[in-house]
Amino acid sequence: MLLGRVVGTLVATNKEPSLEGLKFLILRQLDIEGAEGSGYRVAADAVGAGIGEVVLYATGSSARQTAVTDKRPCDAVIMAIVDSVAVDGEVTYDKSRDG
Amino acid sequence: MLLGRVVGTLVATNKEPSLEGLKFLILRQLDIEGAEGSGYRVAADAVGAGIGEVVLYATGSSARQTAVTDKRPCDAVIMAIVDSVAVDGEVTYDKSRDG
Amino acid sequence: MLLGRVVGTLVATNKEPSLEGLKFLILRQLDIEGAEGSGYRVAADAVGAGIGEVVLYATGSSARQTAVTDKRPCDAVIMAIVDSVAVDGEVTYDKSRDG
Amino acid sequence: MLLGRVVGTLVATNKEPSLEGLKFLILRQLDIEGAEGSGYRVAADAVGAGIGEVVLYATGSSARQTAVTDKRPCDAVIMAIVDSVAVDGEVTYDKSRDG
Amino acid sequence: MLLGRVVGTLVATNKEPSLEGLKFLILRQLDIEGAEGSGYRVAADAVGAGIGEVVLYATGSSARQTAVTDKRPCDAVIMAIVDSVAVDGEVTYDKSRDG
Repeated sequence: MLLGRVVGTLVATNKEPSLEGLKFLILRQLDIEGAEGSGYRVAADAVGAGIGEVVLYATGSSARQTAVTDKRPCDAVIMAIVDSVAVDGEVTYDKSRDG
Repeated sequence: MLLGRVVGTLVATNKEPSLEGLKFLILRQLDIEGAEGSGYRVAADAVGAGIGEVVLYATGSSARQTAVTDKRPCDAVIMAIVDSVAVDGEVTYDKSRDG
Repeated sequence: MLLGRVVGTLVATNKEPSLEGLKFLILRQLDIEGAEGSGYRVAADAVGAGIGEVVLYATGSSARQTAVTDKRPCDAVIMAIVDSVAVDGEVTYDKSRDG
Repeated sequence: MLLGRVVGTLVATNKEPSLEGLKFLILRQLDIEGAEGSGYRVAADAVGAGIGEVVLYATGSSARQTAVTDKRPCDAVIMAIVDSVAVDGEVTYDKSRDG
Repeated sequence: MLLGRVVGTLVATNKEPSLEGLKFLILRQLDIEGAEGSGYRVAADAVGAGIGEVVLYATGSSARQTAVTDKRPCDAVIMAIVDSVAVDGEVTYDKSRDG
């Protein structure tokens, strides 16, 4: 899994029928110090994440192991909203402090 | 998933029999501001996308989770045509405006 | 899928028994203008491709979705020989012209 | 598989229900001389790894082939704690010496 | 598949039980001219490869399609020992000459 920040949304009315009802969010990839990189990913949302939140996302076939993405052509899923991250003994992200 | 723009087509008469009838399109990868990068992908089309359109594509085993790609040796599929993208509160792409 | 040019062959007598009879070809990755990059891939051949030909190859689990690669430890397969490529309205590759 | 050093932890209370009880650790990727790169991965822990330890992790669908990650939306798993690494005839890492 | 040279070994006593008996080797990635890059991979050995040998390895779910790696959390496998490589009409590697 990698860390990302939810920065955007996307509307697509013409899509594979099995994707109906699935919400797609745009994530900027984060490093473990919380800095945004240039990479991004469009991911299905399995946990009700909101704009600005730091999330954990899984890619590949693992992205289909949720109720909302099962058997769908979806290769990235937000599977957790992050409360806090600690690296090398320091809290690098705390939702209540930095969120 | 990643964003791409449909920029080309490809003809291949000598191919795996199971691919018969599948349409392949050439995509340039887009960043979330809509700029084209140097990367590309050849993807099967599951939604009837046309040249110039911005699409969402899935890769890996997830690319086989559509009626047209099921059990085929295909690792990328266009699964949605994008109407609009909003990032950091701004509409970075709107098909009716930019398409 | 990505585009590659068949540039070489490989002999391996000591291999996983299930790979017996499978032909491996060496591909240089191509961009969509037809230029060779520094990347390569060793791929199983499902279509009878020859040295110098431009091909389309699939990777990952999708590479096992052909009769010759089914259930084998093979992560890349040539699934089509390319006749022509058109990008931005121009033919960037034509086998009868450039092949 | 790649080598990583466990450098951090992560708390996420709002997550996919199937992830309940799974422990996530943050890994910095290591090269084979033991130097830390800029890459990282958040991985599920299948072996009881601790902060500072050098571990081996698997990604993709292979990350679901453990009792704790089976059928879960998890794309990276720590599947071994490394005791020692020898490269080009030299011991580049020994847990009892460097750990 | 990609080419690699076996450069090292790794000992891990604390590991996922299903990995018991599996031998892990450290590979440096090779380009098709035989030059070593900076990348590496730790792979399970399905063919009895030895230090210094040039091998072919598969990654992802394809790495589980051997008797020794089936259903194990293993994402890379050595599935062939390379005897010779020919690129652009020249033998770039011959085990009996260069091995």
